[in-house]
Amino acid sequence: MSAAADAFQNATASVDKRVIQPFPNSKKIYVSGTRPDIRVVATIDIRAGLSPLRQPWLEERGDTEILPQPTSLYGRERLTDPKLAQFRFQCSRAPRKAKVGRNVTQMHYARQGVITPEMEFIALRENLRLQEYRDSVLARRHPGMNFGRPMPEEITPEFVRAEVACGRAIIPANINHPEIEPMIIGRNFLVKINANIGNSAVTSSIEEEVEKMTWSIRWGADTVMDLSTGRNIHETREWIIRNSPVPIGTVPIYQALEKVHGKAEELTWEIFRDTLVEQAEQGVDYFTIHAGVRLSYIHLTADRVTGIVSRGGSILAKWCLAHHQENFLYTHFEEICEIMRTYDVSFSLGDGLRPGSIADANDAAQFAELETLGELTEIAWRHDVQVMIEGPGHVPMHMIKENMDRELKVCHQAPFYTLGPLTTDIAPGYDHITSAIGAAMIGWYGTAMLCYVTPKEHLGLPNKDDVKEGIIAYKIAAHAADLAKGHPAAQIRDNAVSKARFEFRWEDQFNLGLDPERARDYHDATLPKEGHKVAHFCSMCGPNFCSMKITQDVRDYAAQKGIENMETALSTGMQEKAVEFKRQGNEIYTRS
Amino acid sequence: MSAAADAFQNATASVDKRVIQPFPNSKKIYVSGTRPDIRVVATIDIRAGLSPLRQPWLEERGDTEILPQPTSLYGRERLTDPKLAQFRFQCSRAPRKAKVGRNVTQMHYARQGVITPEMEFIALRENLRLQEYRDSVLARRHPGMNFGRPMPEEITPEFVRAEVACGRAIIPANINHPEIEPMIIGRNFLVKINANIGNSAVTSSIEEEVEKMTWSIRWGADTVMDLSTGRNIHETREWIIRNSPVPIGTVPIYQALEKVHGKAEELTWEIFRDTLVEQAEQGVDYFTIHAGVRLSYIHLTADRVTGIVSRGGSILAKWCLAHHQENFLYTHFEEICEIMRTYDVSFSLGDGLRPGSIADANDAAQFAELETLGELTEIAWRHDVQVMIEGPGHVPMHMIKENMDRELKVCHQAPFYTLGPLTTDIAPGYDHITSAIGAAMIGWYGTAMLCYVTPKEHLGLPNKDDVKEGIIAYKIAAHAADLAKGHPAAQIRDNAVSKARFEFRWEDQFNLGLDPERARDYHDATLPKEGHKVAHFCSMCGPNFCSMKITQDVRDYAAQKGIENMETALSTGMQEKAVEFKRQGNEIYTRS
Repeated sequence: MSAAADAFQNATASVDKRVIQPFPNSKKIYVSGTRPDIRVVATIDIRAGLSPLRQPWLEERGDTEILPQPTSLYGRERLTDPKLAQFRFQCSRAPRKAKVGRNVTQMHYARQGVITPEMEFIALRENLRLQEYRDSVLARRHPGMNFGRPMPEEITPEFVRAEVACGRAIIPANINHPEIEPMIIGRNFLVKINANIGNSAVTSSIEEEVEKMTWSIRWGADTVMDLSTGRNIHETREWIIRNSPVPIGTVPIYQALEKVHGKAEELTWEIFRDTLVEQAEQGVDYFTIHAGVRLSYIHLTADRVTGIVSRGGSILAKWCLAHHQENFLYTHFEEICEIMRTYDVSFSLGDGLRPGSIADANDAAQFAELETLGELTEIAWRHDVQVMIEGPGHVPMHMIKENMDRELKVCHQAPFYTLGPLTTDIAPGYDHITSAIGAAMIGWYGTAMLCYVTPKEHLGLPNKDDVKEGIIAYKIAAHAADLAKGHPAAQIRDNAVSKARFEFRWEDQFNLGLDPERARDYHDATLPKEGHKVAHFCSMCGPNFCSMKITQDVRDYAAQKGIENMETALSTGMQEKAVEFKRQGNEIYTRS
Repeated sequence: MSAAADAFQNATASVDKRVIQPFPNSKKIYVSGTRPDIRVVATIDIRAGLSPLRQPWLEERGDTEILPQPTSLYGRERLTDPKLAQFRFQCSRAPRKAKVGRNVTQMHYARQGVITPEMEFIALRENLRLQEYRDSVLARRHPGMNFGRPMPEEITPEFVRAEVACGRAIIPANINHPEIEPMIIGRNFLVKINANIGNSAVTSSIEEEVEKMTWSIRWGADTVMDLSTGRNIHETREWIIRNSPVPIGTVPIYQALEKVHGKAEELTWEIFRDTLVEQAEQGVDYFTIHAGVRLSYIHLTADRVTGIVSRGGSILAKWCLAHHQENFLYTHFEEICEIMRTYDVSFSLGDGLRPGSIADANDAAQFAELETLGELTEIAWRHDVQVMIEGPGHVPMHMIKENMDRELKVCHQAPFYTLGPLTTDIAPGYDHITSAIGAAMIGWYGTAMLCYVTPKEHLGLPNKDDVKEGIIAYKIAAHAADLAKGHPAAQIRDNAVSKARFEFRWEDQFNLGLDPERARDYHDATLPKEGHKVAHFCSMCGPNFCSMKITQDVRDYAAQKGIENMETALSTGMQEKAVEFKRQGNEIYTRS
C-alpha cells in the first residue's frame, strides 16, 4: 500500500474517542442461553471489524456454502481494481450462499418449527427487561398499573418463532453478516428505531460514515440504513457492515443508478439484479425495494402539492414513463424473492409514493401503492422471505391511525416501518420534533420500527450531531410508544429516573437518562460544584421552593404521625374545621 | 440616581439586538376594525414600555377609576423604598380599579351582550388566516381537504363574545395592562402557547428576565408567566408587564412565600390577599391559584413515586398540615373572586396535585383535585370571573385523552391549560421533546393553551437558548394540534412551505418556517453559496438523486403528452403490457 493508503487506513482506525466510549457508570451484563456462544464480547478495532458471533450457528445448520469469489460481476471488479486498494476493507470474508435448493431464511426455519440461536438470543434480549420488571419493588407497589393493552407475559424463544413464522415479525439477519447481535422487528416486541447514514455526491467520506454508524449505535439505533449515493459506495458499505452489530439496510436502486451515471431510463433488470447479489454477498440485512410504484399509479401524483418525494419512487416513476412499461421491480418480483431467500435478506417494501407534505397525506396514490405492497407480501411469504412495509412520511395527527389500520389490513399484519411521520411542515430545522410526535403516535398504534428524521431533514446531509439529535428524539418516541402499548417492562426505566429525581440522586438521574452527558452539562451550567450533585434543590427554584424537598418534609411529618392514621386524622380534622369555618365565617384561618 | 443605578437602567435599555429584530423578509400588516385604534405600532424602548393600546377603550367604558396610589401595603412600600430606586421602572402608571360595585371582566361584558374592542380585535386576529385561506389557490385545489372536525366558518366578534360568555374561552386582559394586544384562549380558537420565565434565588437578573420575555414573544409565545422566586420580584414584574404585548401570568403564592422568608407555615390570608392586590394593580392578567389542594387530598399522594411536584401545591400542602386546617385559598375563594373581578384578572386554577412522573399519572389525588377545580369554576363564574384549568404534567400517551375528557366534564368546558404532558421520564435534557408529543396530542383533543417545557426542565433554570428551543417545540405542537383539530386556516402555512420546497424556492422555505435563521444555517452548512439557494438539489441527495427534481421531470413529460390524456394513455399502455407480460413471462422488460 502507498503512504496515502496507509494514511487513510490509519485515519479510519482512529475514530473520535467519544464514538466508542461506554456510557458513564455503565457496565455490560451478559445473560447466557442454552449455549455459551449466545453472548458477545466486542473489542472495537475498526480495521479488523467485529467478531463473527453467528458464524458457528451458520455452520452448524449446514445449509450454506462458502463461495470462492463474489457472484456479482461488479463485486468482483471492485475487489480487483488496484485503484481501490487504499479504500478497501482489508479483512473481508469470502461470501456465503445457500446450497442449491435450500432456503436459509429465519422465516423458513420458523415455519419448519425450528428455534434458531438467533431466536433464542432475541428472546433473552427482549425478556431481560421483563424479568427485571417482575423482580422490581415498583412492580409490587403498582401492580397492573398503566398497561394499555395486553402484552405477552414472557418473551419465549417459541413466541419469537411463532411471530416470525406468521410474518408478524422479522429478524433481519443476512448469512453474510455474522457480526450482528440478532434483533427482531414486530409489534409485539419493543419498538425499534433506524438511523440513516450515507454520503452523497456533494459531501462526506468513508471515515465519516463509519463513525456515524458507530455513533448511531452508541446512542441506541437498532438498525442502520446506508443510503450512500456518492463515491465508493461498495467500499463504504463493506467497512460499515464489518463493524456493525446491528442489521444494515440499503436501497439498492441508488447504487444501480450510480452504475448508469444517474440516468434512470438506462436502468435495467440485469444491472439491478447484479447489485442485489453484490450487496447480499456483502451482508446487507434488508433491502428497500420500490416494487409498488406501478406505472398506472403515477398519474395519481399529478395533482399533488409535492409530487413524488421518495428518491427510489421518483427514479422508478421516471423509468416507467420513459419506457412506458411496468416497473421492472414489480415484474421481476419473484426472481428478487429467490435472491432474498438465498442469503436471508429481508424485504423492506418501499413506499415510493408516500406523501411529501401534509397536503398529500393519505391520498389515492399512497393507498394504491399500499395495496400492491400487500399483494407483494403474499408473494414473498410464499418464498418464506421476510417482509416489512415502509410507511409515510408527512401526515397530520388525525390521519395517522388510518395508516396503521390500513397497513395491518391490506399487508396482512407484516411489520410496519414508518418514516416519522411529520405532523406539520412549518418547521424546517426541527423535523426531528415534528416527526417524533407522529412517530410516537404511530408506534403506539402498532408500528414496529421508526425510521428517524434529523434536524437537517429537507435542508442538508446530517452530521454526527444531527444523527445524535435524531436518534434521541426517536428513542423518546419509541419508548413513549412502548409505554402506551403497555409493554410491561417499559415503565421500569421511567420509574427509576423518577425515583432518582425525587430522592435528589442527581448522578443517578443523569446516568439513567438517554443522554447522561447532556443532562449533567445542563445541570452544571448553573450549579457546577460536586456538592450540588447531592443538593436537595436545583437552580430552577432554589432551596426554598423545591416542591420535591417540601414534599419530603410533608412525608416526614406524616411518618411521625403514622401514615396509617394520617387519612383518618386529616379527614376528621378537616370536617371539624369545616364546621368551624361555616360557624365563624371567612376569618378563622388567621396566622397561627 | 447614582452612577450604579444609571448603569443598570442603561444595561436594561440595551437589549441583545437579536431579541427585537424582525424575522427576515417579514413585514407587519395591520387590519382595521370598526375603529382606527384597533391596531398597534410598537416602538421598542424598554425603559419607556409599550404604548397603552387599550387605554381609550378602558376609559370609554367609564366603569373604572384611577387610584392616587397602590392599594397594596407592600406595593406602596416598594414604591417609596429609596434603596430600590435603581431597579425601579421609571414610567409606571397609577393603578386603575373598578368603581365600587362595578364588575369589569370581559366575561361580565360578554354576558351583558356587549362586544368589547378586545373581542373585536381578537376576531380580526383569529379570522385573518381564515380569510387568507379562503382566498388561496390551495383552498380551491383541495376543497374540504383533511379537516378533522368542523370549526366555525368565520370567527366573528359575536362568536368571540358568546364563547367568553359561556366560559368556554377567556380573554386575559387586566385593566392595568393596557399594553396588550388582546388574545383569546379557548378550544374553538387557535391553540396558544405559554412560555415561563422568571429568576430564582440562585440565578438571573431583571435585565435577563425582561430580555427573555421579549425573546419569548419574538419566537411566538402567546402569553408569558413570570415565575420569579428570587430577588426584586415586584420590580422585575413591573419591567416585564410594561414591556409585554401579551398577557402575563403569575403564581402569587411564590411572592407571598418570599414575604414570609420561605416558611410556608407562616403564610396568612392577609399576606396573600395583599399580594393579589399588589400584582393585580401592576397589571398581571392571570393568577395561578392552587385552591384545589384540599387538606383531605394530601394523604392521597403518600404512595406516589414523586409525591407533590407542583411548587404551589407543595407549599399549600405544607401549610395545611402545619395548621391542620383547610387550604386558605379554598376557604377564601369568594373573596379572591371579588378581587379578580375588580381588575379583570383571570383564574388559572392550579393543579397542585398533578403527577410528577409516568407512574403517578391519572391517580386519585390528581382527579380529586380536578373535581374541586370544577366546583371552584362554578363559583368564579357566579362572579363573572374568567377561568382556565391547569392540567398535567407527566402522562403516558394512552392516558392523555382521559385527562381532556374529564376536564371538559367536571370543569364544565372551561379552557384547559396543560403543562406538556411529558410522555416519558427517561430523557432529562430533552423534555421539550418528550412533552411536545403529549402537548400536540392533548391540543388535538381540545386543550386551549399549552405551557411549554424547555430542555432544562428538571435540571436548571432555562437560559435564552433554552427558552427558544422550548417555544419552537411548542409552536410545533400547537400547530400540529390546529391541523388535527381541523382549523381550516392552519394548513395554509404548511402548504406554502411544501410548495416552496417542491419548487426549490429555498429562501421562501426558510422564511416561511418557524425559525428562518436555523433553516438557513443548516442548509448553508454544506452548500453556502448564494447560487445554491436556487439550486434544484441539496446536499442530502446531490443533483442526480433529488426526488423533487425527478418529479419535475416526470411532470414536464406529462405536460408534453397532455395531462388529460396521461391517465388513459398510461392505463391503456399498462394493460397492453400486462397482457404481453403474461404471454412472454418475466423476460420482456429488457433494456430498451
